[in-house]
Amino acid sequence: MNFDPAEHSHRRRNPLTGQWVLVSPHRAKRPWQGRQEASAAAELPRHHPGCYLCAGNTRVNGQANPDYRGTYVFTNDHAALMPEVPDAPAGDALFQAQAARGTSRVICFSPDHSRTLPELARDEIVAVVDTWCEQSAELGREHAWVQVFENKGDIMGCSQPHPHGQIWATGFLPNEAATEDAHQREHFAAQGHPLLLDVAAREAGGERVVVQNEDWLAIVPFWATWPFETLLLPRFAVQRLPELTAAQRASLADALRRLTSRYDNLFRCSFPYSMGWHGAPFDARDASPWQLHAHFYPPLLRSATVRKFMVGFEMLAEAQRDLTPEQAAAQLRAVSDVHYRSAP
Amino acid sequence: MNFDPAEHSHRRRNPLTGQWVLVSPHRAKRPWQGRQEASAAAELPRHHPGCYLCAGNTRVNGQANPDYRGTYVFTNDHAALMPEVPDAPAGDALFQAQAARGTSRVICFSPDHSRTLPELARDEIVAVVDTWCEQSAELGREHAWVQVFENKGDIMGCSQPHPHGQIWATGFLPNEAATEDAHQREHFAAQGHPLLLDVAAREAGGERVVVQNEDWLAIVPFWATWPFETLLLPRFAVQRLPELTAAQRASLADALRRLTSRYDNLFRCSFPYSMGWHGAPFDARDASPWQLHAHFYPPLLRSATVRKFMVGFEMLAEAQRDLTPEQAAAQLRAVSDVHYRSAP
Ligand SMILES: O=P(O)(O)O[C@H]1O[C@H](CO)[C@@H](O)[C@H](O)[C@H]1O
Ligand SMILES: O=P(O)(O)O[C@H]1O[C@H](CO)[C@@H](O)[C@H](O)[C@H]1O
Repeated sequence: MNFDPAEHSHRRRNPLTGQWVLVSPHRAKRPWQGRQEASAAAELPRHHPGCYLCAGNTRVNGQANPDYRGTYVFTNDHAALMPEVPDAPAGDALFQAQAARGTSRVICFSPDHSRTLPELARDEIVAVVDTWCEQSAELGREHAWVQVFENKGDIMGCSQPHPHGQIWATGFLPNEAATEDAHQREHFAAQGHPLLLDVAAREAGGERVVVQNEDWLAIVPFWATWPFETLLLPRFAVQRLPELTAAQRASLADALRRLTSRYDNLFRCSFPYSMGWHGAPFDARDASPWQLHAHFYPPLLRSATVRKFMVGFEMLAEAQRDLTPEQAAAQLRAVSDVHYRSAP
Repeated sequence: MNFDPAEHSHRRRNPLTGQWVLVSPHRAKRPWQGRQEASAAAELPRHHPGCYLCAGNTRVNGQANPDYRGTYVFTNDHAALMPEVPDAPAGDALFQAQAARGTSRVICFSPDHSRTLPELARDEIVAVVDTWCEQSAELGREHAWVQVFENKGDIMGCSQPHPHGQIWATGFLPNEAATEDAHQREHFAAQGHPLLLDVAAREAGGERVVVQNEDWLAIVPFWATWPFETLLLPRFAVQRLPELTAAQRASLADALRRLTSRYDNLFRCSFPYSMGWHGAPFDARDASPWQLHAHFYPPLLRSATVRKFMVGFEMLAEAQRDLTPEQAAAQLRAVSDVHYRSAP
């Protein structure tokens, strides 16, 4: 019997985290009798009088939003992180704690309540990219880590339909950042180049590519855990968002629009996900092992209403997936990169 | 300003995994405008003619279940793991893979379609514990790791309302097992006793206790990530399920019944969770650093219909919680340990 990754259970290793994922490709065949998610919401208005994020409306804290035209950034009214926290007693080996200082901001992508990222005009997407870059630069001056992210869809805990992202900046390196830092550092010491620049070079033009342009590559990584997870990689060396040139931001907007359009087209719905950027920490450590990248973690598996559950075995033992990353990439490549709601 | 863990953001370290969790206690005050889960299902019949797990019924593969009276174990009709898999090409540093061999079984807790763990009679719960122990012993003879777990509730991906658990046995140590192995080994080398035996000794009678009897302790661990996560610990040294004596199994059944009754009583619903057992691997390594334990990971946060979402910052950076473990333990202690459906 020859090993066939589309037929036989196997594990793959994520070199960014050192974690393995169990791939059980035959499992996609089982009938699904479990929970069905509600299907996509109805058409939204361009301005909603009850929305806390629309231009001109009053937020939960009583402040009014300005009549903004592009992106709009403000400090989260219920921030998980705050700048002033007294030192915590350190505890001991079993019960260790430390104070957590930082800030949380919200980024409205545009005043339009109804249009998500792939439905924005190209220059509106560039404005979102520019805001990510400017905010990272500003917050990076006082924080070791700046986490830019978006929770899209109520299935991803998003409590506001108005398209927006968040930035949580912290004085410490969170778990994922520390893990990726260690693994990129190890690869750099052994190979002499950044891990993800090597990955991009190996993957370009290959079977896991979803979107590719001169500067950027979106792949379903070899070690993807979520069914349609993607990794968005620059094809040139760059460590942090603010270092991107105007041309690289424009080509990034193109890659983002095409990737998120393929996502929406896959099940003809507003495709939910959590996405976010990882780049070199803003503290004093050597940044050369790092390569900027974005992760997209979408929960859907079979349709707009059937998701993957990361529960049980996944929480207690190891993440498990039901189709191969190569199959997922082929499905995403098979749909158009022009959004179904804009196509004639 | 003095540090107050119920007021100030801080991080706590999980000594079993080395991962940190961000605690933002003030965040529980924010209003929730996001997704609401469907509320609990209606009363279930004791036998359901369409259920694949009820006694005497025919399963999806055409086989009929026996007319079982106690627990009933069978091989999963859509197993994620199978015994025969050819070797996979090892790949290289960036693209590493390996064959995954194992098996998956289903454990029906009782023939009764309508009664979950806390609603079973005491000897029926002992029968579940005995089955966990026997299955672990049997599968441990041929597998390095035996993962006993339960996904409870459709919100946890459970596709069958008939109360049941699963066992996935693997020829390899999954991520979580390998991580806990390394951290317990390190603690044992430094301190000379098992990490979790030290934790149990420190926690007994304390503010994080939810249930305690002569043999067992259920605590909201100092480093809990899920709002009402608990850790069920033996108060005596024991490495694996099959090593439990009859008396220890009986006292475990008592602790399980009281813990899961408090869970159901908290929001007066069938409280969803994923739970599972971790014990020393069944391979040749030295088992002395290990201590048997069970994790309960329940998703609910505020009510039967409002859950915690581990998304965005959690997926990309670090798990975050909205109330302190001490507050969660106090809430669980404040409700009865007698199930609300059985109380007069
Ligand atoms: O085997 P089940 O119960 O159908 O499936 C459930 O549990 C499995 C193991 O935790 C998960 O991998 C699945 O995503 C989940 O839906
Ligand atoms: O801040 P939001 O959007 O209200 O909250 C959402 O995103 C946060 C950051 O990922 C999570 O911690 C919350 O669980 C989720 O509901």
